Amino acid sequence: MISFENDYTTGAHPKILQRLSETNLEAVTGYGMDPYCESAREKIRKSCGCPEAEVFFLVGGTQTNAVVISAMLKGYEGVVAAETGHINVHEAGAIECVGHKVLALPEHSGKIDPGELETLLENFYQDESYEHMVFPGMVYVSHPTEFGTLYRKGELEAIAEICRNYHMPLFLDGARLGYGLMSRESDMTLEDIAGICDVFYIGGTKVGALCGEAVVFPRKNAPKHFLTTAKQHGALLAKGRLLGIQFDALFTDNLYLDAGRHGIEMAERLKTVLKEKECVFYLESPTNQQFIIVEDSLAEELRKHVGFSVWEKPDEEHTVIRLVTSWSTRPEEIERLGELL
Amino acid sequence: MISFENDYTTGAHPKILQRLSETNLEAVTGYGMDPYCESAREKIRKSCGCPEAEVFFLVGGTQTNAVVISAMLKGYEGVVAAETGHINVHEAGAIECVGHKVLALPEHSGKIDPGELETLLENFYQDESYEHMVFPGMVYVSHPTEFGTLYRKGELEAIAEICRNYHMPLFLDGARLGYGLMSRESDMTLEDIAGICDVFYIGGTKVGALCGEAVVFPRKNAPKHFLTTAKQHGALLAKGRLLGIQFDALFTDNLYLDAGRHGIEMAERLKTVLKEKECVFYLESPTNQQFIIVEDSLAEELRKHVGFSVWEKPDEEHTVIRLVTSWSTRPEEIERLGELL
Amino acid sequence: MISFENDYTTGAHPKILQRLSETNLEAVTGYGMDPYCESAREKIRKSCGCPEAEVFFLVGGTQTNAVVISAMLKGYEGVVAAETGHINVHEAGAIECVGHKVLALPEHSGKIDPGELETLLENFYQDESYEHMVFPGMVYVSHPTEFGTLYRKGELEAIAEICRNYHMPLFLDGARLGYGLMSRESDMTLEDIAGICDVFYIGGTKVGALCGEAVVFPRKNAPKHFLTTAKQHGALLAKGRLLGIQFDALFTDNLYLDAGRHGIEMAERLKTVLKEKECVFYLESPTNQQFIIVEDSLAEELRKHVGFSVWEKPDEEHTVIRLVTSWSTRPEEIERLGELL
Amino acid sequence: MISFENDYTTGAHPKILQRLSETNLEAVTGYGMDPYCESAREKIRKSCGCPEAEVFFLVGGTQTNAVVISAMLKGYEGVVAAETGHINVHEAGAIECVGHKVLALPEHSGKIDPGELETLLENFYQDESYEHMVFPGMVYVSHPTEFGTLYRKGELEAIAEICRNYHMPLFLDGARLGYGLMSRESDMTLEDIAGICDVFYIGGTKVGALCGEAVVFPRKNAPKHFLTTAKQHGALLAKGRLLGIQFDALFTDNLYLDAGRHGIEMAERLKTVLKEKECVFYLESPTNQQFIIVEDSLAEELRKHVGFSVWEKPDEEHTVIRLVTSWSTRPEEIERLGELL
Repeated sequence: MISFENDYTTGAHPKILQRLSETNLEAVTGYGMDPYCESAREKIRKSCGCPEAEVFFLVGGTQTNAVVISAMLKGYEGVVAAETGHINVHEAGAIECVGHKVLALPEHSGKIDPGELETLLENFYQDESYEHMVFPGMVYVSHPTEFGTLYRKGELEAIAEICRNYHMPLFLDGARLGYGLMSRESDMTLEDIAGICDVFYIGGTKVGALCGEAVVFPRKNAPKHFLTTAKQHGALLAKGRLLGIQFDALFTDNLYLDAGRHGIEMAERLKTVLKEKECVFYLESPTNQQFIIVEDSLAEELRKHVGFSVWEKPDEEHTVIRLVTSWSTRPEEIERLGELL
Repeated sequence: MISFENDYTTGAHPKILQRLSETNLEAVTGYGMDPYCESAREKIRKSCGCPEAEVFFLVGGTQTNAVVISAMLKGYEGVVAAETGHINVHEAGAIECVGHKVLALPEHSGKIDPGELETLLENFYQDESYEHMVFPGMVYVSHPTEFGTLYRKGELEAIAEICRNYHMPLFLDGARLGYGLMSRESDMTLEDIAGICDVFYIGGTKVGALCGEAVVFPRKNAPKHFLTTAKQHGALLAKGRLLGIQFDALFTDNLYLDAGRHGIEMAERLKTVLKEKECVFYLESPTNQQFIIVEDSLAEELRKHVGFSVWEKPDEEHTVIRLVTSWSTRPEEIERLGELL
Repeated sequence: MISFENDYTTGAHPKILQRLSETNLEAVTGYGMDPYCESAREKIRKSCGCPEAEVFFLVGGTQTNAVVISAMLKGYEGVVAAETGHINVHEAGAIECVGHKVLALPEHSGKIDPGELETLLENFYQDESYEHMVFPGMVYVSHPTEFGTLYRKGELEAIAEICRNYHMPLFLDGARLGYGLMSRESDMTLEDIAGICDVFYIGGTKVGALCGEAVVFPRKNAPKHFLTTAKQHGALLAKGRLLGIQFDALFTDNLYLDAGRHGIEMAERLKTVLKEKECVFYLESPTNQQFIIVEDSLAEELRKHVGFSVWEKPDEEHTVIRLVTSWSTRPEEIERLGELL
Repeated sequence: MISFENDYTTGAHPKILQRLSETNLEAVTGYGMDPYCESAREKIRKSCGCPEAEVFFLVGGTQTNAVVISAMLKGYEGVVAAETGHINVHEAGAIECVGHKVLALPEHSGKIDPGELETLLENFYQDESYEHMVFPGMVYVSHPTEFGTLYRKGELEAIAEICRNYHMPLFLDGARLGYGLMSRESDMTLEDIAGICDVFYIGGTKVGALCGEAVVFPRKNAPKHFLTTAKQHGALLAKGRLLGIQFDALFTDNLYLDAGRHGIEMAERLKTVLKEKECVFYLESPTNQQFIIVEDSLAEELRKHVGFSVWEKPDEEHTVIRLVTSWSTRPEEIERLGELL
């Protein structure tokens, strides 16, 4: 059995486990105030080129989205996102649970369009009855998106400029940021992202950590008492060291980017194999999630030997399946998949 | 520097780290559906003597309290707790954040009194205007309490009976349950607790795990779609294996109870040393949290060499400090503290 | 100046004011427990043909939607509604504010389509990851819709059957129910609606009352402690008599239906005038809201003499305007509008 | 049957009903944007001596408390109130429902003590773990209190000063403000209250209106988009005129104060009668709520002829009953009560 089910099927990068072992019996203070968290913060600040950045470590993605969004929005505001955005579909209503509406924009291979964003905002403020509606209070983008696609730097800058004009923060969900940064089609560095966004997170869970997401407010612009907001949402880990040590390892000797690069190399190899086998791609993805359209009978047969997820049923006889590589994918797994196909 | 600051200053029990390493590169499915979680569940069911128990693994204590309480209460209900209960004081309003009031009862060394609980309930339903008030919908107890004290089996049974009479579930916060079970003064086993309570959690974070709490609904009585409720609150870990492997290790060869026993042995040794040094105890605690009243000057001096937390300032010249032992406390640390005193 | 701005520009039907005056100095108990509320409840039960119905009086529409929906949904559920449904657009996020997502379906002249509803539900439960998504927990329809359109009895029954199959209550927002019932195209009576829906409200504010909406649970199926839920949401009026007296008057001698009939007669007369003037209708509405597409210059000119609301800007040169009649519209106003056009 | 059950048993002051009738068929715009609301606002600004005050009309007390408090608090903050404060006891958890904890202070005849408030705040910020607790974000006082008692001007100023030092707004719940202002023991005018508080409301429901509370932000300090927040909480009345006309009448020719004065005169007469009958007072109240301790048998007998509410059962044989006068109490009712006693 081989698995392309997702990028969180295996444990952690061995260097992370090693650091957890080495530091295991040292007694440090809790809640992210330990020296490992501080060291990780400093390394992240450097990697982002933001010496004043405020960095917080939370445990998982849905949690991070809910905490960041509720900390930044006023009560009468909602968050603008692609209709396919993770917060709008696959987080069980976590944003609504803390009181805010997701204002959905059309998606284009998972991305929002700056022009459509601007139109939404113009229309909102031109509406006679806008005071009876949910105010657009911030913009959420995922990068890579839920379809593995990437924003071009110019697109993200255009979105950021609109946000500035309307005094709305721009939030980038980087659950798979490592794979985005290492994609051959990426034209942005971590510094670029930190320069463009008002807040973003560097995903650990899907890029080699056991758990953990690093939230970055690049210009010392964290909402007041963000730690308390995290605590209130059950997102403050007692043994903050678990997150600090992992991110410290990930930001030592480029481990984070290396993990991302490996996932991308495996994805490119996977694409080559899929193309050789004349698979039909559902869309063109430059990162570690690949989507192909297969006949139902093939999907059923494959399922006996390969882990994957079913994305959609475009018609009665076909299935869109998602194949995901990661920092831990082995070339043999791809070869084996090729054989099976 | 030695630390009695709390029971989450160090990493994980070495056997846990070992199991994390051994299983690290196996690919398993996410969100608690992996074989390690399933194995851990089965072992916990056995330890609880509840073959039908439903067991869920969440990440931390505040989160667990909020998820369990909001899953079990109706919108118009609140949760009854001691005024010093963790949910009423040190969780940054996590319960209120999800819409519920904490109905505070007086505390007696951290415990609620069955008689006072009954009076509260009688008075509530006798009040002409009870429909304008928050309905008491469940009872929360911590065991050990925030003061390290323990309920006697008879007390917990009395509370449970009142709860049954009023159709309210009884929820036991077992963040430090391992230390409670192994206390010399405990008259309850895990089976007893599972028999008495409607829901409780077995704390991992403070008893040897990196993170993790195991929520047990002993009689197949989990609220419908509890997993979705957890997800909605950002409490569902993608790599559920991290929790499953840890609890599987903790419930193999009695590791959980052994960890608890060590913490208690160290606490007893600590008490002996403190008594020898004629320290004044703030209260009598039979578990791993010990509270002593010291002169401010001594507290300041100690702080240079010892980690502890300040509990209270009873007057201008004294401080109540809390000293906590754990599964990882070393006898040398206690000796050293004795020397310093 | 004449006004077709909406159906809540004037005060109350004179018979309501008269009853308020007649009863003014009688002392009665509060919170809806007075004899006028009880009398109104009984009359509504009769009109609905539901001798067991539970009836509650709330103050306004947004409030009623939020209270009913939050009382009936579990925490992990959302409410299905047309994308143009009032709760999804013009209630400032009141549903999200109490923790629930609005699951939007496409609209067809403001209505949802039973087939699309069924598809949404089928797809939901077939999705591998449905436990990570918001469960569809109830269906909301407005009747008349925000576009003045009406469900046919067959359509509403089809929706109700789907709801029953999926154990979801069907909630009908009847803010303008009186106009719907009296429309020439209506094929449903109040009894029909009570027989089909699980909960609905009879709008008072827009059909002749100063304020007030009567929520009806036709089969003794109100959620437990609904009064407390209303209180908790600030929706329980201390002087409940204000609502009871009004609904008692509205359900005496057919006043409610008469008020609705007058609004419809005026709407029909308005349509005739608009057609005579060769206005272009935005859509065909059989109730008291009429939508026409006019050139911007005409809209500007009209605004000097006529109250109306701007619905939409379909292009750079045209405006969709909404003209609303009500129980208090006078024929002269329509004549005057004809002259102005 | 005579009634001292509360101050909202009767309808509205006849002058209010008269104004509602006179204006009934005028068409005005909704949501508080009509000329009557504007006129009422202007009169309230004058009465408060605050030409820049922002004034909003909401429907009821619980609603007003929830909207004001949630509009002014940040997510991680709670509201400090007396343990007997209305928001802490008799509003069914409306504050928690919108996410905030009520931080209870001891009560002294219903009032909070400035010294105890200061101690709470000092202790909070001195606590090592204050970031894990609910931040005190504003102070709520009711005036008159739930026991009919009044703050002295010096007391309220002392509380306000503490609030300013800690950057917390001071909110005064004036549900019965008219009776407070007209009490013989009051040393504050409406101008004083507007000068001292950051936000307060002038209660209409209990002082002669059918419904309605006027929220005043005296120094143009309303939270941004307060109207939208009100809408979101279901607190924005469509026919805002109903509130505007009532408050316009109440603030014309001193009607509000006259209504308050009548309630106080009746209360003084009631006290005289009760003293003559040698009733035992539960506490000394200078406003329109009077509390006496009677034998259970007397309470039962009285209940046949008099409406009142049961406040408390101090022991097995006695009951504390509350007798309330209002703007509509007639001297004959008090005489009759005297006879019955």
